[in-house]
Amino acid sequence: MASSSSSDSSAPQTPQLRKDSVTNRWVIFSPARAKRPSDFKSKSPVNPNQQHQQQCPFCIGHEHECAPEIFRVPPDNPDWKLRVIQNLYPALSRDIPAAEEGNNSDSGRVVVNGFGFHDVVIETPVHSVQLSDLSPREIGEVLVTYTRRIKQLMSYDSIKYVQVFKNHGASAGASMSHSHSQIMALPVVPPAVATRLGSMKEYFDQTGKCSVCESNSKDLLIDVSAHFISIVPFAATFPFEMWIIPLDHSSHFHELDSEKAVELGGILKLVLRKMSLQLNNPPFNFMVQTSPLGDNASQLLYSHWFMQIVPQLSVVAGFEMGTGCYINPVFPEDAAKVLREVKVS
Amino acid sequence: MASSSSSDSSAPQTPQLRKDSVTNRWVIFSPARAKRPSDFKSKSPVNPNQQHQQQCPFCIGHEHECAPEIFRVPPDNPDWKLRVIQNLYPALSRDIPAAEEGNNSDSGRVVVNGFGFHDVVIETPVHSVQLSDLSPREIGEVLVTYTRRIKQLMSYDSIKYVQVFKNHGASAGASMSHSHSQIMALPVVPPAVATRLGSMKEYFDQTGKCSVCESNSKDLLIDVSAHFISIVPFAATFPFEMWIIPLDHSSHFHELDSEKAVELGGILKLVLRKMSLQLNNPPFNFMVQTSPLGDNASQLLYSHWFMQIVPQLSVVAGFEMGTGCYINPVFPEDAAKVLREVKVS
Ligand SMILES: Nc1ncnc2c1ncn2[C@@H]1O[C@H](COP(=O)(O)OP(=O)(O)O[C@H]2O[C@H](CO)[C@@H](O)[C@H](O)[C@H]2O)[C@@H](O)[C@H]1O
Ligand SMILES: Nc1ncnc2c1ncn2[C@@H]1O[C@H](COP(=O)(O)OP(=O)(O)O[C@H]2O[C@H](CO)[C@@H](O)[C@H](O)[C@H]2O)[C@@H](O)[C@H]1O
Repeated sequence: MASSSSSDSSAPQTPQLRKDSVTNRWVIFSPARAKRPSDFKSKSPVNPNQQHQQQCPFCIGHEHECAPEIFRVPPDNPDWKLRVIQNLYPALSRDIPAAEEGNNSDSGRVVVNGFGFHDVVIETPVHSVQLSDLSPREIGEVLVTYTRRIKQLMSYDSIKYVQVFKNHGASAGASMSHSHSQIMALPVVPPAVATRLGSMKEYFDQTGKCSVCESNSKDLLIDVSAHFISIVPFAATFPFEMWIIPLDHSSHFHELDSEKAVELGGILKLVLRKMSLQLNNPPFNFMVQTSPLGDNASQLLYSHWFMQIVPQLSVVAGFEMGTGCYINPVFPEDAAKVLREVKVS
Repeated sequence: MASSSSSDSSAPQTPQLRKDSVTNRWVIFSPARAKRPSDFKSKSPVNPNQQHQQQCPFCIGHEHECAPEIFRVPPDNPDWKLRVIQNLYPALSRDIPAAEEGNNSDSGRVVVNGFGFHDVVIETPVHSVQLSDLSPREIGEVLVTYTRRIKQLMSYDSIKYVQVFKNHGASAGASMSHSHSQIMALPVVPPAVATRLGSMKEYFDQTGKCSVCESNSKDLLIDVSAHFISIVPFAATFPFEMWIIPLDHSSHFHELDSEKAVELGGILKLVLRKMSLQLNNPPFNFMVQTSPLGDNASQLLYSHWFMQIVPQLSVVAGFEMGTGCYINPVFPEDAAKVLREVKVS
């Protein structure tokens, strides 16, 4: 366990720039920013469920309004608990060749065919149920479904990375209010993943240790179970950003077994409920941060998957777009303390 | 001028991944995505000016409600046209020492004092006036004001980069509706800037050419003036993203002279008006993309400043946060054609 740079008491109150060895991204921590006024109306934190069940293609009984199904749980059962379907408006196409890079080196322009997979996971048959309403066992089934689909997608040589993510609420980008997540299989290793891997490798080369194994410290801890911890990362990009980390070093999320999936379901449910109670049911995103597919034995030593959960509390604007730096008004030690102490009944 | 990879006719309709040699960022172009429905209420494109002039600290006559002034134009005149002031809720502090990096290499955690400057440029004394309402000459004065402030900030050795940006409209992050922009001086070279510089260098090393000089091509052009062009970049991160590029190779925005500033003011005004007419007055951000400060003679060969203008039409969600890849439903050739043809009276 790494020692923390600040003491156990509260976080510093002058601004600070931080960078960790996982994301390798500068974040400005600035408590003064939290106090600034706004003369625009504030966004409603609540997510209105505007569509009635009759009109929602993701509801049970509306399967014919969806793009083709990939599988359902339980199989062949009209009374399904969850479904993996094709995205009807896919960002990538499974029907075009996975061509080689078309690098026009003289113009510096690189073009690759948009081959890939874009699926939707419908997490529940019922419109009014949210992921955090499910039991740890049921959330575990959603997580195992992700792993099962990733294992199918791995069979395509040209797929280099699979991104699992969830958008909840309109200002977190969701266009559908029925509880769902998405799985995208990409023909390239995306830039944020390459940066993360490079940063983890550099730390490993310097210290012989895994940077995610080391990211645990008492003042950043939220909760702990037998095989997982939830923390606020040391250089959290966003206020109240949370990570769930498997305690045993493991590179690939899809290696999660069904027993641990139930445990992960429990700690994810706890984190989502704490966030909801503390922050007034905010819109949020979660992302599975895993490792690229394909053989790379040395990568297994320094890469360690985790889940990143981000409540949508602020807007990314000109400064962040221009610099790739982020401004976070809440020190991670303070956010962790608050989240540690939320009472969930 | 680089030849374009697609012909002059319309853009391809299957998805495509693109990367250019400036941002070096994968973008997925996916026309199918534009058609997806949403069951959430859509955001209003209009920016309500909710605060009355009486309550706005940026309005003329309310100078005492603002943080200290740095300078005004014209100087010492109560009837000012624009003011540069300190940000009352600064992300960085000018009052703490610019300490050395505190790298705790064992924990992989890097901490730097949050030394820096965070200013606001009030672009007009009048609450109801927007930047694009000003004349090219007046916009030129705003641009010259940016350069003048950057030159002051350059005198601090510990300042490595200055980011100029503007947020317009609540969903583009603005908390104040009175027309303004911001200037932040940073003690580190931010990651997006380092990536851009690295990418430009790599292209220069391979070809001997500047990647920004080469980014001009007929099918991506919007407008042209004596010393500037406006284009949609080949791998635009966002739909209808636009760049204004000086035709003469130049690394640093702050070297703009006052004559060219008026010309730049004119082409910026044109681009903002076209965007507003075509896209129904959307919230937007603009960013000056310039080069780090300090001596680096070889950098001058391959780095070239430009202005990036981004209308806020979509939400960055789980996929983008997880991967650093972006999904853009509008092919740049199509956006450029539309913007080329907008009639501005
Ligand atoms: N009948 C049907 N059958 C099958 N699929 C259907 C369907 N009707 C709709 N869909 C798909 O269901 C998905 C719902 O996804 P989300 O609500 O999580 O956000 P979306 O992908 O729209 O965009 C958000 O997430 C992406 C990725 O992060 C961002 O690019 C974007 O800006 C943000 O709004 C959509 O992708 C849609 O194409
Ligand atoms: N009386 C006064 N005197 C001096 N200054 C005053 C003042 N009253 C307010 N201010 C300052 O004026 C600025 C107005 O800036 P903007 O409206 O462009 O967005 P803001 O910086 O709030 O945040 C947006 O931009 C930042 C940076 O991109 C994002 O981090 C953030 O999420 C997004 O909402 C604020 O920074 C505020 O601190």
